[in-house]
Amino acid sequence: MNPKSDATQLSQQKQSVETLRWREGRLEMIDQRVLPMHFEYLAYTNAKEVAEGIRSMVVRGAPAIGCAAAYGVALEALASQHMANDAFIQAMERGFTELAQSRPTAVNLFWALQRMRACWEKSSSAPPPQIAAILLEEAHEVSQEDVRINRAMGAFGASLLNDGARVLTHCNAGALATAGHGTALGVFRSAVEAGKKISVIADETRPFLQGARLTAWEMVQEHIPVTLITDNMSGHLMQHGEIDAVVVGTDRVAANGDVANKIGTYMVAVLAKRHGIPFYVACPLSTIDLSISQGKDIPIEERSRDEVLGFRDYRWAPVGVSVRNPAFDVTPAELVTALITEKGVVHHPNVQNISALFR
Amino acid sequence: MNPKSDATQLSQQKQSVETLRWREGRLEMIDQRVLPMHFEYLAYTNAKEVAEGIRSMVVRGAPAIGCAAAYGVALEALASQHMANDAFIQAMERGFTELAQSRPTAVNLFWALQRMRACWEKSSSAPPPQIAAILLEEAHEVSQEDVRINRAMGAFGASLLNDGARVLTHCNAGALATAGHGTALGVFRSAVEAGKKISVIADETRPFLQGARLTAWEMVQEHIPVTLITDNMSGHLMQHGEIDAVVVGTDRVAANGDVANKIGTYMVAVLAKRHGIPFYVACPLSTIDLSISQGKDIPIEERSRDEVLGFRDYRWAPVGVSVRNPAFDVTPAELVTALITEKGVVHHPNVQNISALFR
Repeated sequence: MNPKSDATQLSQQKQSVETLRWREGRLEMIDQRVLPMHFEYLAYTNAKEVAEGIRSMVVRGAPAIGCAAAYGVALEALASQHMANDAFIQAMERGFTELAQSRPTAVNLFWALQRMRACWEKSSSAPPPQIAAILLEEAHEVSQEDVRINRAMGAFGASLLNDGARVLTHCNAGALATAGHGTALGVFRSAVEAGKKISVIADETRPFLQGARLTAWEMVQEHIPVTLITDNMSGHLMQHGEIDAVVVGTDRVAANGDVANKIGTYMVAVLAKRHGIPFYVACPLSTIDLSISQGKDIPIEERSRDEVLGFRDYRWAPVGVSVRNPAFDVTPAELVTALITEKGVVHHPNVQNISALFR
Repeated sequence: MNPKSDATQLSQQKQSVETLRWREGRLEMIDQRVLPMHFEYLAYTNAKEVAEGIRSMVVRGAPAIGCAAAYGVALEALASQHMANDAFIQAMERGFTELAQSRPTAVNLFWALQRMRACWEKSSSAPPPQIAAILLEEAHEVSQEDVRINRAMGAFGASLLNDGARVLTHCNAGALATAGHGTALGVFRSAVEAGKKISVIADETRPFLQGARLTAWEMVQEHIPVTLITDNMSGHLMQHGEIDAVVVGTDRVAANGDVANKIGTYMVAVLAKRHGIPFYVACPLSTIDLSISQGKDIPIEERSRDEVLGFRDYRWAPVGVSVRNPAFDVTPAELVTALITEKGVVHHPNVQNISALFR
C-alpha cells in the first residue's frame, strides 16, 4: 500500500477520512498512532486483533471504537464459520470477551457489542456461515448509521455556532473518532457546509496528542482554519476574548448529564463557565448510558506511565519519577450548556430531558 | 567537562543544583534545554552571549534570568576593561540593551539591570578595570542574595504546608530557576528540611516541559517524592481530593497582586479556587513591579511556533496548522490565597498590603 496515493485519493472524496473500511474480507483501520507523520491502514481478521487495535489506540474515539467492535464480532464469525456449532459459539464468546476488555470508558463499545449479540441471538438457529453474513451486514449498518447520526448532529450543532465563530475543541472527536464526519468536528464540517466561516482552536491533548496530530490534520485536510495550542493555553485565550464557543465529543454520558471525555475536558469546561462561553458536547444517543446515574460512577481508564514520560520513543522525563495517567475525566452536567444529539439539542441536560430522548 | 562527574559532585553538595557558577573569569550555566537527558554547563564571556543564553532558554526562571543578566553586565565590563573610556561606555550600553531585549516578561531581568546600572553609575569615575571588578562583586552579591531570599521565602512558605501535604506545582520555580534553593521548590525543600513529609505533583508544562524535565529532575535528585502529570490532569486530581495545595513561582507581580507566570498557571488557579484548594505564589520582592498597576499591562511574550509543533527536533503536528504560543498568562489577585515573600506571607494580596512590603 502506498500511503501517499491513499492520502491523495482520500482528499478527493466527499467523505475525506475513512477511518474504518471493509476490503477483501478484512477490516482496515487507519493507524492513528502514527498520524500525521505516516498515513497507513492496518488490516484485521479476527476479534482478538481488533481488541488489540482498540487497546493500543490504532483506532480511538468512542463511536469509532463501537464500529470497530462490531466489525470485530463479524470478523470472528467469518473466521469461525466453518467450525462445528459448539466451537463456533465458543469462539464467538471468546471474541466478545476480548473486545469487551479492550478499553473500559467508552460506552459505545459495550453498546455495539450488545447490538451485535442481539443480532447473533436472533439468527442463532441459522448455520454459522449465514450468521457470519448477517453479522457483517449488521456491522456495516452500525458504521453507516454512525455517519447518518453524525450528519444529523452536525446540522443541529451548526445552528448553535455564529458565522465567524472561533471554536475550541479538545482531543479528536472527528471523522477519525467515528465512521465518518465526526461528532464535534462534524459540527464544524456541517457549519462550513452551511456557509459559515468558522475557525477551530485545537488543544494538543497530551499525552497522546490527538489534537495536535489528528484534529489539526483533519482540519488542514479540509481547509478549515485551525490553530494549535498546548492544553494549558485555553484559559489565557478565553481571558482575552479569543474563544466564542467550545464543542467536544464524549466517551460516556451518565443519566444525569455528567460527561466523561478525554482528560482535560473538565478544566476547559470550568474555564468556559468562568468566562461565560457556551460549552457544547456532541453526543450520539449510543454514548448515553442510562444505567449509570452520575458521572462519578463511570470507570476511568488509567493508561501506561510511558505515555506521560515522553511521546512514543522520545522520552524527556527523568528516571525515578512517578506518573499518573487517567485517560478521561468527568465534567458535571452543571457546566454543560447543551448536549448536541441526533434527535436535537438538549439544553441544560438533566435526568428528565435526557430520559425524554429515549421515549 | 564530564557531565557525569559534575552531576555526582553536585548531588553531594548541600546546594544540590548550581544553575549559574563563576569559573575562571567566565559565567557557566547549566544548559536547561537538554536536561534531564544531558547535564552540561555552557560558558559565557560577554553580554551578547548571555542575552542569547536567556533568549534561547539555556537559563530560564525569573530570578535566574536576573542573576544571569547581572553577570552579563559584569562580563561585558571585564571584556571591555582595557578599552578607552568612551569605547568602554559604548560597549557597556550596548550590553545593557542586548540584555534588556532578551526576554520581555520577567521583571527580575530589568530589576537586575537597574541595580547593575546604579552600581556602575556610583563607580563611574573609577578606571574601567576597577569598575569591572566592582560590577563582578555586585553580580556575585545578586546571586548570593537570591539564595538568602529563597531560604527566607522557603521558611515562611513551609509553615503553610501541612505534614503529608500533596502539593501541585506548575513549570519549574526551582533551584534551576534561581541562583539556588528555588522559590516554589524552595518552599518544598524547606518543608522537607523542617521534617515535613510532602509529595509534589508536577505539571509537565508544555511546550518547553519545564515540569517534566526540570522540576521532576530536581525533586528526584533530592529524593522528594514527585508525580508527573500532563497539564490537563490537575483538575481531575483536584476533583478527586488528591491535591492539598498549589505553590507556583512568578515572573512578575503587578502592584495590585495580579500574577504573571508560565502559561497554564491561570487555569490551575481557577480550578484551585473551585475546589477550595489554597493557591500560593512564591514571590521575591524583586519580582513585584509597582510600576505596573494591574496584570493586564504586563507584556506577555509570544514565542516561536516550533515549540508547539513538537518538542525539540521531534515534530508531530501537520504542515499547514497555525499556532499560538503565549509563554505566560496572568492570574488575577482574587485567585491568589497568598504571596510568599522574603518579608513574610501576604494573604489576599492587594495594593495596600503589597505596597506595605516596600516601606
